[in-house]
Amino acid sequence: MNVKPIVKSDIEIAQASAMKPIAEIAEKIGLLEDDLELFGKYKAKLSADTLKKLSTKESGKIILVTSINPTPAGEGKSTVTVGLADAFNRLGKKAMVAMREPSLGPTMGIKGGATGGGYSQVLPMEDINLHFTGDLHAITTANNALAALIDNHLQQGNLLNIDQRRIVWKRALDLNDRALRKIVIGLGGPVQGVPREDGFDITVASEIMAVLCLASDLQNLKERLGKMVIAYNYDKQPVTVADLGVEGALTLLLKEAVKPNLVQTIEHTPALVHGGPFANIAHGCNSVIATAAASKLADYVVTEAGFGADLGAEKFLNIKARTEGIDPEAVVIVATIRALKMHGGLSKAELGKEDTEALTKGFANLKKHIETIESFGLPYVVAINRFISDSENEIEVLTELCSEAGMPVALTEVWEKGGQGGIELAEKLLGILDEKAANFSHLYDLSLPLEEKILTVAQTVYGASKVEYSTKAKKQIKDFESFGWGVLPVCMAKTQYSLSDDPSKLGRPSDFTITIRELKPSIGAGFIVALTGDVMTMPGLPKAPAAMNMDVDEDGNAVGLF
Amino acid sequence: MNVKPIVKSDIEIAQASAMKPIAEIAEKIGLLEDDLELFGKYKAKLSADTLKKLSTKESGKIILVTSINPTPAGEGKSTVTVGLADAFNRLGKKAMVAMREPSLGPTMGIKGGATGGGYSQVLPMEDINLHFTGDLHAITTANNALAALIDNHLQQGNLLNIDQRRIVWKRALDLNDRALRKIVIGLGGPVQGVPREDGFDITVASEIMAVLCLASDLQNLKERLGKMVIAYNYDKQPVTVADLGVEGALTLLLKEAVKPNLVQTIEHTPALVHGGPFANIAHGCNSVIATAAASKLADYVVTEAGFGADLGAEKFLNIKARTEGIDPEAVVIVATIRALKMHGGLSKAELGKEDTEALTKGFANLKKHIETIESFGLPYVVAINRFISDSENEIEVLTELCSEAGMPVALTEVWEKGGQGGIELAEKLLGILDEKAANFSHLYDLSLPLEEKILTVAQTVYGASKVEYSTKAKKQIKDFESFGWGVLPVCMAKTQYSLSDDPSKLGRPSDFTITIRELKPSIGAGFIVALTGDVMTMPGLPKAPAAMNMDVDEDGNAVGLF
Repeated sequence: MNVKPIVKSDIEIAQASAMKPIAEIAEKIGLLEDDLELFGKYKAKLSADTLKKLSTKESGKIILVTSINPTPAGEGKSTVTVGLADAFNRLGKKAMVAMREPSLGPTMGIKGGATGGGYSQVLPMEDINLHFTGDLHAITTANNALAALIDNHLQQGNLLNIDQRRIVWKRALDLNDRALRKIVIGLGGPVQGVPREDGFDITVASEIMAVLCLASDLQNLKERLGKMVIAYNYDKQPVTVADLGVEGALTLLLKEAVKPNLVQTIEHTPALVHGGPFANIAHGCNSVIATAAASKLADYVVTEAGFGADLGAEKFLNIKARTEGIDPEAVVIVATIRALKMHGGLSKAELGKEDTEALTKGFANLKKHIETIESFGLPYVVAINRFISDSENEIEVLTELCSEAGMPVALTEVWEKGGQGGIELAEKLLGILDEKAANFSHLYDLSLPLEEKILTVAQTVYGASKVEYSTKAKKQIKDFESFGWGVLPVCMAKTQYSLSDDPSKLGRPSDFTITIRELKPSIGAGFIVALTGDVMTMPGLPKAPAAMNMDVDEDGNAVGLF
Repeated sequence: MNVKPIVKSDIEIAQASAMKPIAEIAEKIGLLEDDLELFGKYKAKLSADTLKKLSTKESGKIILVTSINPTPAGEGKSTVTVGLADAFNRLGKKAMVAMREPSLGPTMGIKGGATGGGYSQVLPMEDINLHFTGDLHAITTANNALAALIDNHLQQGNLLNIDQRRIVWKRALDLNDRALRKIVIGLGGPVQGVPREDGFDITVASEIMAVLCLASDLQNLKERLGKMVIAYNYDKQPVTVADLGVEGALTLLLKEAVKPNLVQTIEHTPALVHGGPFANIAHGCNSVIATAAASKLADYVVTEAGFGADLGAEKFLNIKARTEGIDPEAVVIVATIRALKMHGGLSKAELGKEDTEALTKGFANLKKHIETIESFGLPYVVAINRFISDSENEIEVLTELCSEAGMPVALTEVWEKGGQGGIELAEKLLGILDEKAANFSHLYDLSLPLEEKILTVAQTVYGASKVEYSTKAKKQIKDFESFGWGVLPVCMAKTQYSLSDDPSKLGRPSDFTITIRELKPSIGAGFIVALTGDVMTMPGLPKAPAAMNMDVDEDGNAVGLF
């Protein structure tokens, strides 16, 4: 008789896990209750004083978790991030997690949280996936307060001579709402504002989110907010937040959001969950402030970057890591047999059956990402994140493929076993950290022209043969360099599904061209976004949104949240 | 030599006041740390368990603070609310404040907070005036998640047959943003949604805010959310949130926001600050849950209702007080010499000079509001809220006018002196509460037709001679009664500046007609909104918004917040 194993859902596992008071978790990393601003019993922000105190301490080692190009089969990068930190702690090391906070848009839309899974989750997962400590709401508010102030400036006489056709600052909501992508505002006559085209992005795509994640402290945040370009005037010169004189108000709205949030994993490992920029339109990493704080509080910080190594990790290493003290010492590249089989040509429906041929073919995707990490001079370990459907034979084949290519590899079973399932990976990393010193360098010098920086990323990271520009993009590059923005790093906006800018090209495509459609200045964040293909900055809801299953029970507990 | 007294700003006074840990404040009213969900050291929410426990306890006395029709001269109703509770505590009584939480729209727009003033404030005023515990953000999110789900329903096949021209659910932001009043959404082609007219209200005007403030508990909240009308279908029948099946998701988004927030006054009186619906489009009172909880925790609860007695108090008494246990025992009517002089015909510039004639003329406005409170069968005291510019002569004249009319009156100096300045008012109230039993009754029976309920309010409360209806409103009344909504109370939407629906008619106008332009069903909140004149549900920003002066200092403290 076949008995199907009963697999618990992530929320069931989370709700059955006993949390410790957050003050007790903080004690483990040398923080007193006075260092915390409590949000209930299980969440806290680190106070401004604490952050200042920490800045003089020595830094621990940062380990960056990235992955192959994501597929609908799932990779479990957040799950590995959490499980790896738990494993370090099981080995007697002082480790912490530093990861991004989720956006409500996907939460209400598509089944699937952003707080890890199984026995490798951060808690309280319901709170973190819903309003958490209000950081995203503060960003939404600051974003839209700025938009209202811009439209009010137009309405009240337009002293700055803003060209209403060239306002680049969009409104934002932390929701999936396709009907707000393209709108016309200010209708209804002269007392209802100046009519113009506008649109909403999802909050995680707001430049303010990127600014918050790259700021080193509150004053630096204010400086960056002041530099944000909101429009061009009738002389085609950029107009900034500082020109409007409201960077102080925006900073005031963000003064709490800029403090990192302390929570715990199921195994009580301390975790800072803070900031959550998109890894396509923005740089896709948790905040510099949180990563830096974690590195002062623990000897090992496990952090992640969004999507595959071609997006999140490239940006971590070329953008975020230009902030002092944020260099990683080693990288983990997460792959699953299922996802590699999809890269090898299988459809999602075919993943249940063993197929070592597809696996071998899909391995090329993993290999490309390894080469990318090597080009940054960083040691790494491949983590094969085990799924219940993987056959022993497939695991053997993949392990063999890695060994042949000289890639250190470890099997992880963190979903099912928590930290225990990450011991092999943790041990391999400790070995590597002892043996190999990282020889980290960014892929390009900031002094290079924008086009050369883009070409470097496209060729070295994506494997493209060349880069082409639309007429618009060509003109923008010229303009941007004339405004003095040529010295900024580039933030590539590209589909996460492929190494190319065509989401249907899985595996390791070759001989392809990257087309730069448009550029976008994120001067406050400190980078130039280069948009390829049709990158979406406001997702839509599916036919049956996750919201349909959500509820509260009689005791007020969350129901149906994944 | 004349020395000008240095008057400190509200934020300076607030920041110079030492707060006690909120757990210590809670102890005073018999709550343990376990009853609280802390938000930092000085704010907390009451837990769901605590609210349940409280429901069986005996209730204290509720005192409702209202005022004359507001003028640009200011009345200080929140200031008196806070100072009165402080005065009760100084007299050895166990008293609490239950008031509304501020909206960020006015905070960023017009100088002037909503947390009291001078030495009668609730603290921490910066937090309360900014994001506080995130209640308004949760309401904004729930409001817009619903809107996104409606548009997604249209996009995905429109099974409910919703007429896109008859969607009544609007989007919301907690900001003043006139350019979003009338917009067109869903532009850009078939994958960007269904094009239609739409608009944003300020969050405090969202029906969800009213629902949160009238719900008796979480399950009642869910029931009310399900009843909200979002649109009409092609058969012109109402479509509700329950039809869409997302009341569970909305409740989940609001499960924390529904818990009242505990803070303290400068004099450490416990205060519940929770919910903040508009007093024009909605009922303008803090939450039923908070008012009820306060009445279980203290012997005297001082609470306020928005704008003048014609709006906030009328709705408190005809709508909110239909919830069991929320009847007030006495009313305070706040008036200032300055405001009465404006009602007597002076402009704001003329208020500095003594003018007992204008004062005597403006007294008629106060008298009308007294008659209104009497018509509800409630005892009251008039509070003359002293301003620095009031002359002794003027105070004498006003006191005399009140005495002649048989109105109990007390001078308050709560801005300058805190609770000490409210002792006379507190003592008079205690005397009245001992002597006179309230003989409270609502102004109308729910079984009356909608038009008769509207007429009752217009004649008894406003002093109107008659009510006229637009053709649209007449048709709506017929439709609404056919949907079974005729048994609901009416929520009048009217200018706050006049007893009539014309904001320029100050004092006590007579022989005027109230014109009902349109009705709006708020079936979840449980009332029918009757719109008169041009009531605004999304304010605009002024020429020099308050945001221009806001900032943070080097230590991260708020600057320029009033």
